[in-house]
Amino acid sequence: MTNDHFHDECGIVGIVNHTEAANLAYLGLFALQHRGQESAGICSSDGEQLWTHNAMGLVSDVFSEATLAPLRGTHAIGHVRYSTTGSSILKNAQPFVVRYMNGSIGVAHNGNITNAAKIRETLEKDGAIFQSTMDTEVFVHLIARSKKDGIVNKIDDACSHVTGAYCLLFITETSIIAVRDPYGIRPLVLGKLGNTYVVASETCALDLIDANYIREVEPGEMIVFDRDGMNSRRLTVAKNVTKTAKCVFEHVYFARPDSVVFGNNSFEMRKRMGMQLGSEHYVDADMVIPVPDSGIPAAIGYAIETKIPFEFGLIRSHYVGRTFIEPKQSIRHFGVKLKLNPMKHYLDGKRVVVVDDSLVRGTTAMKIVSMIRHAGAKEVHLRLASPPIISPCFYGIDTPTKTELIANSNTVEDIRKFIAADSLGYLSRDGLKKCMGDNAGSFCYACFSGEYPF
Amino acid sequence: MTNDHFHDECGIVGIVNHTEAANLAYLGLFALQHRGQESAGICSSDGEQLWTHNAMGLVSDVFSEATLAPLRGTHAIGHVRYSTTGSSILKNAQPFVVRYMNGSIGVAHNGNITNAAKIRETLEKDGAIFQSTMDTEVFVHLIARSKKDGIVNKIDDACSHVTGAYCLLFITETSIIAVRDPYGIRPLVLGKLGNTYVVASETCALDLIDANYIREVEPGEMIVFDRDGMNSRRLTVAKNVTKTAKCVFEHVYFARPDSVVFGNNSFEMRKRMGMQLGSEHYVDADMVIPVPDSGIPAAIGYAIETKIPFEFGLIRSHYVGRTFIEPKQSIRHFGVKLKLNPMKHYLDGKRVVVVDDSLVRGTTAMKIVSMIRHAGAKEVHLRLASPPIISPCFYGIDTPTKTELIANSNTVEDIRKFIAADSLGYLSRDGLKKCMGDNAGSFCYACFSGEYPF
Amino acid sequence: MTNDHFHDECGIVGIVNHTEAANLAYLGLFALQHRGQESAGICSSDGEQLWTHNAMGLVSDVFSEATLAPLRGTHAIGHVRYSTTGSSILKNAQPFVVRYMNGSIGVAHNGNITNAAKIRETLEKDGAIFQSTMDTEVFVHLIARSKKDGIVNKIDDACSHVTGAYCLLFITETSIIAVRDPYGIRPLVLGKLGNTYVVASETCALDLIDANYIREVEPGEMIVFDRDGMNSRRLTVAKNVTKTAKCVFEHVYFARPDSVVFGNNSFEMRKRMGMQLGSEHYVDADMVIPVPDSGIPAAIGYAIETKIPFEFGLIRSHYVGRTFIEPKQSIRHFGVKLKLNPMKHYLDGKRVVVVDDSLVRGTTAMKIVSMIRHAGAKEVHLRLASPPIISPCFYGIDTPTKTELIANSNTVEDIRKFIAADSLGYLSRDGLKKCMGDNAGSFCYACFSGEYPF
Amino acid sequence: MTNDHFHDECGIVGIVNHTEAANLAYLGLFALQHRGQESAGICSSDGEQLWTHNAMGLVSDVFSEATLAPLRGTHAIGHVRYSTTGSSILKNAQPFVVRYMNGSIGVAHNGNITNAAKIRETLEKDGAIFQSTMDTEVFVHLIARSKKDGIVNKIDDACSHVTGAYCLLFITETSIIAVRDPYGIRPLVLGKLGNTYVVASETCALDLIDANYIREVEPGEMIVFDRDGMNSRRLTVAKNVTKTAKCVFEHVYFARPDSVVFGNNSFEMRKRMGMQLGSEHYVDADMVIPVPDSGIPAAIGYAIETKIPFEFGLIRSHYVGRTFIEPKQSIRHFGVKLKLNPMKHYLDGKRVVVVDDSLVRGTTAMKIVSMIRHAGAKEVHLRLASPPIISPCFYGIDTPTKTELIANSNTVEDIRKFIAADSLGYLSRDGLKKCMGDNAGSFCYACFSGEYPF
Repeated sequence: MTNDHFHDECGIVGIVNHTEAANLAYLGLFALQHRGQESAGICSSDGEQLWTHNAMGLVSDVFSEATLAPLRGTHAIGHVRYSTTGSSILKNAQPFVVRYMNGSIGVAHNGNITNAAKIRETLEKDGAIFQSTMDTEVFVHLIARSKKDGIVNKIDDACSHVTGAYCLLFITETSIIAVRDPYGIRPLVLGKLGNTYVVASETCALDLIDANYIREVEPGEMIVFDRDGMNSRRLTVAKNVTKTAKCVFEHVYFARPDSVVFGNNSFEMRKRMGMQLGSEHYVDADMVIPVPDSGIPAAIGYAIETKIPFEFGLIRSHYVGRTFIEPKQSIRHFGVKLKLNPMKHYLDGKRVVVVDDSLVRGTTAMKIVSMIRHAGAKEVHLRLASPPIISPCFYGIDTPTKTELIANSNTVEDIRKFIAADSLGYLSRDGLKKCMGDNAGSFCYACFSGEYPF
Repeated sequence: MTNDHFHDECGIVGIVNHTEAANLAYLGLFALQHRGQESAGICSSDGEQLWTHNAMGLVSDVFSEATLAPLRGTHAIGHVRYSTTGSSILKNAQPFVVRYMNGSIGVAHNGNITNAAKIRETLEKDGAIFQSTMDTEVFVHLIARSKKDGIVNKIDDACSHVTGAYCLLFITETSIIAVRDPYGIRPLVLGKLGNTYVVASETCALDLIDANYIREVEPGEMIVFDRDGMNSRRLTVAKNVTKTAKCVFEHVYFARPDSVVFGNNSFEMRKRMGMQLGSEHYVDADMVIPVPDSGIPAAIGYAIETKIPFEFGLIRSHYVGRTFIEPKQSIRHFGVKLKLNPMKHYLDGKRVVVVDDSLVRGTTAMKIVSMIRHAGAKEVHLRLASPPIISPCFYGIDTPTKTELIANSNTVEDIRKFIAADSLGYLSRDGLKKCMGDNAGSFCYACFSGEYPF
Repeated sequence: MTNDHFHDECGIVGIVNHTEAANLAYLGLFALQHRGQESAGICSSDGEQLWTHNAMGLVSDVFSEATLAPLRGTHAIGHVRYSTTGSSILKNAQPFVVRYMNGSIGVAHNGNITNAAKIRETLEKDGAIFQSTMDTEVFVHLIARSKKDGIVNKIDDACSHVTGAYCLLFITETSIIAVRDPYGIRPLVLGKLGNTYVVASETCALDLIDANYIREVEPGEMIVFDRDGMNSRRLTVAKNVTKTAKCVFEHVYFARPDSVVFGNNSFEMRKRMGMQLGSEHYVDADMVIPVPDSGIPAAIGYAIETKIPFEFGLIRSHYVGRTFIEPKQSIRHFGVKLKLNPMKHYLDGKRVVVVDDSLVRGTTAMKIVSMIRHAGAKEVHLRLASPPIISPCFYGIDTPTKTELIANSNTVEDIRKFIAADSLGYLSRDGLKKCMGDNAGSFCYACFSGEYPF
Repeated sequence: MTNDHFHDECGIVGIVNHTEAANLAYLGLFALQHRGQESAGICSSDGEQLWTHNAMGLVSDVFSEATLAPLRGTHAIGHVRYSTTGSSILKNAQPFVVRYMNGSIGVAHNGNITNAAKIRETLEKDGAIFQSTMDTEVFVHLIARSKKDGIVNKIDDACSHVTGAYCLLFITETSIIAVRDPYGIRPLVLGKLGNTYVVASETCALDLIDANYIREVEPGEMIVFDRDGMNSRRLTVAKNVTKTAKCVFEHVYFARPDSVVFGNNSFEMRKRMGMQLGSEHYVDADMVIPVPDSGIPAAIGYAIETKIPFEFGLIRSHYVGRTFIEPKQSIRHFGVKLKLNPMKHYLDGKRVVVVDDSLVRGTTAMKIVSMIRHAGAKEVHLRLASPPIISPCFYGIDTPTKTELIANSNTVEDIRKFIAADSLGYLSRDGLKKCMGDNAGSFCYACFSGEYPF
């Protein structure tokens, strides 16, 4: 719940064959809002033409009856995006829609292309012009320039040139095409509602529109929805890729707790991490409290494992606006207090274990610890349900630079001193893997280990 | 958290003697936002003149640097208001500020005057004109027409004419005056921050600005803050009033869980109600889940008492906007799903106890029960941590009419059938009183009993 | 056209007995927009209830389908207001609507009550409270407190207490009542469209809605439109008033040139003033140019009289917005240039007579003269089609204080030097009266003479 | 002034070497607002990077302190655009800015490329993607794909591939480049303010910022402003072009009357056309009145030539908003009356000559004639200061299709009957050429003759 978290970059949703395609895409985006709050957009197809509306803001701000009504047709893709920088940020909103030789094409992308700059340079040498700063734009150029026959082969060809993380939804006048990179870094699920197929970043988007979860879109899979129905094939570039590198941080923090991603429910995974954390870092205390809402599942797990009572020691405000007038007079823990109020009644004189999911810079944790102590707690022990974060992510997550990651250059004891906790315990890397169970080998742990999958 | 709740009518805050009076009032209103989301306003005084800004909307929408800066001076009162009706609703925003013989006066009011219509008629016969439909306006007329000397006696005189619930904050060019009705129906607390006095509906407003809680403003008390400092007196009308009638629903639902009102913390009171509920209505089940966030404290209490495991079976969305485009195609439990998503993973095949704080119309509860069952639960038992609501409130709460209160004309078994739960248990009236402890006699239970204090 | 003009305070319109009363009031206000640009409002009656919408801004900003639709009924009054000051300016928007003993009443007022402060003091002593700073509010209090029978007699009674200028339109659940003060200071005309009566400040409001002009509402007349039809009576306070004091400045500048006010067309009157000006202040020159649009009629008259060719030497921009980003670098005559561009082609080397209607502070005239000279004019002669303004107006016009009126403390030669014209000629007071013809005695010339009618 | 006119498509301005480049571009656009009201935009360069802000709306709506401040640097280009169609119209706002191999480039375009569709097809075959529907986008692709060295040669190369009308302003990190097509169809002028060069569609943009007019940018000229100062060269494609085809309609209607375009002042040219019209189509009448403001110069000319008195018989409203609530009840000449009110006083019983600049569909003229007659005129004679429009324009003007041009398929007598005038006179084509004087051969008269220059 605190600001000191990694931020996801995007959420995507596709609706195939429904009379209210744009409306369902809108609901899907609403359910995926936690994956990106800066811009939102939908592109629909009526069989002959694409219709698009993108704007900066939350889904509920961007779309209204008036902006949804023109998005005609039975197919639609949608996108929410986390904040970016640049002078002309609306241009970075997605779906990104262009015209090329064979007609119109729109794309919504979750992930990050690691060789985008190099491809861009090559394309520009060949006369390409770029309108956005998004890596997504290179996909469209590669497709437009592909000599292969038909949009499906062109997309497959384009994927052969890129490395990195990509869950993609393409829309043309007559088809929707879903693609997941060979390593399966970002999640993508397939669902069905009557005769309608739904593709989305997380299952919470399926739940809201009553679609049933079928399966994950597989790493390296391309699913084509067109007049011939649904057809799956494997990307050429994926032919020789045998391992996957699913982002473990989706389970640590990104995914909505009620979602199933990578085949597991995130709340349950977090609870497991909390239990494992309890077994690794027990401390004699009077109560376990979560940093709401992000720390709740792990705190429950920690309490179960340690048998220390679970309490709500911090109450979260529901009305945190996006801007705030700060008083000149310094108020203790001001920024944190707008969101969280400590329950003096419970905390006074107590030995408290505070549980959160992860720690990035440490500044907010320091304020929370101080606030709890100020509310009367005798001891404050911080427990984190993931290992120290030592390396940035290059696969679609907006992480700080290495030097801003407190665990990159500080020992656990240094960090404990910085945040002024009585004790500090991180879930171990092995402990995290243990929570992942049989699938432990299918995940990417690079932010915790510095070992990148490629 | 569901819409099927009573709605509070207002929250108020006053800041006495601070160089950033309006800024602190703004923060106080922010902390009291749950008490009223329709309009917000602040009136400040610089010793010579009053400055006011009122508008429709949330505190964070109504106020900006630009609208706060003109609110000069060291004294300020603020107000948030829940929705009202009428053609010219901005006129009903508070603080309500007028000029009368002795200068300017502003007022912020939480409560409801039960004899307002009659007083109004008398005043109009005497030539008074009214600009709003608020009962608050009669106070100002009574003050302006009082023949007593000085504003303090005029206010005391005005209070002698009115019956009902009123926590009032008045501001003049040189003073702030806090008044609480003789029965103490609505809460009002006094705090201090250095040399600054703070008066507010709940302690959460004190917490955010680092003020210390001193005590309640007493029922029938009038506190005058002016150049002579702080002086307390008893309202003339309160002279012969010996009992109080504090609103027990503040503890059931209204007050923020982290607030202290009527001398107790609301989270703790709700937890107690949950425990009592557990002792009254045990059922053999696999898990206890709250309707978040309103049912969390009681669910924790219920789980402690019954030893049934506490789980989060419903996940709340953080991004519920104020308007929403509904698809034409019927989606099951659509309205509820925008806010709550059931955790199929946990619920499937389970016997579930769902705990909420209260039940008004029953329509939302019916959708929640159905949604949980649809998610796979084998049994769904609803438990409510307050007694059946059978009578409307006339003291400042926006309640439906009698016929809309499902418990007014239906037995518990009828209601159980309506919401289609496997069992339904309400906290008993005696159980509720037991939770209130030694103070049980000081509360108003009229909405549960139909016995009004006057 | 320049900013250096007097500003009117208000325009009013009333529609009696039409199925689209509010829509017609809206069109009437649109035609009267030049009389007030700060706020606009309409109050309608459906026979049982009043409906109101007021807001800050231009008529086309304030009203939309959504804000007009709720203004039901067959009767409506409307108001446009020129800028006022104060912290809560929306409260000063009209129609001003209140409830009193006999029901609801709304009022729209053009003019100014000269004894408002004194009446207000008396009312406040008697317990009245005021919500606005408008003098209009005292009318409503006087009506509410009148002991006379029925609204018509109450209004008549209220008028007996006030002095000053007032054209008033009242609306109740069942009637519209038009009142013009005994001196007839501000204009008010009566028109008819089928069975619908229309009352408005100027005939341009009648023209737009196809109503025919019938006559002026007479000075001291009260016209009641109710279920008995239209009835006229004379105000009691007007019984002994024999002279009138119609504002000559309506013909000099305020009224739209296409309007008939006080029985004459303003364009024609201005042209006559220009001719008279030509006969009084001839100068040998190459061309006569107006300051558009305010100086056009007088410039045409001047050209006719002097036989000097009429040219458009200044072109007016159509897109002057309300706010403007000024460059830091000083651009010559910047503010004036946004509105007016000199035609170098015509002006270069020429002896130019510039005609405007009046001169208040002289600052804009100075910039215009300088701009014309800078465009190459060899000589610049300024001619003003009204006499020097030496005294402020107390009858509803927003005039600067005496010391800001350049002609109050400066000779014509001083002013000529200040604005750096080669010569300067004002229409004489006798000349102005001559233009008014047989009605010359019915006008107020106080701003030119300092002789106030009462 | 009526809506029944051709509409220009764009206005452009460039500022070279000024510390407030974006602010001056903003003022220039403000002066050119009449050339396009749908969108506005500015792109500036600080020597290293381009900064852009585009939005739908008027210049004063699009730009504020907040949106101008980020447009850093000493160079800037700006653009105003008349309405276009399409689902994603913001994408069609200019300047259009992209990145290509050599860096960033922005372009502002006034005109129309006649072979855009064909070029586009070729480019798409080669893998190009398009984001807008603007013909302007092809320029940027041609530049990015040019094999020539340096941006100047690339632009020259790109121009070799296109036919049509184009005044272009390019901006790169270090230069501004102005280009005018070989036929000089649209106007473009060069001015200077101290060390700052200014390029703009019309001189009114120079006037507002105090820049001096130097000369036209010549047909076929490319002016490069970079670190080497200002350098002019002739486009390769212009090498063999000897004639020009300047748009005569700029003088008929488009250009602001105070502007100099194609070396002449438009007001003066229009006055000449009015005089010529008078000599061709005299009628015995009591007065000549213009349709304000478009018909004023020609009406003055007509009055001079015919010695019939010039009068203002129609008064224009200053407050025409963009949307308007129309009453259900039919009001005569409603749409026209919002803008123009006839002066019954002058028109009653008179024989009136009404002068406007041109006639496109005839519908508005019909309403004006009817309105004047309804105001009492005995005879209404319409005179148009340009020849019948028989052919659409393909060079950047938004003209109706052939069938909507009333003069395309109707005789003058037919048109006279349609608009119900007593007589109708158009300026002859020879008369128009005569007004153009020695330069008559340099203009395009295609809309009057159907003879296109290429």
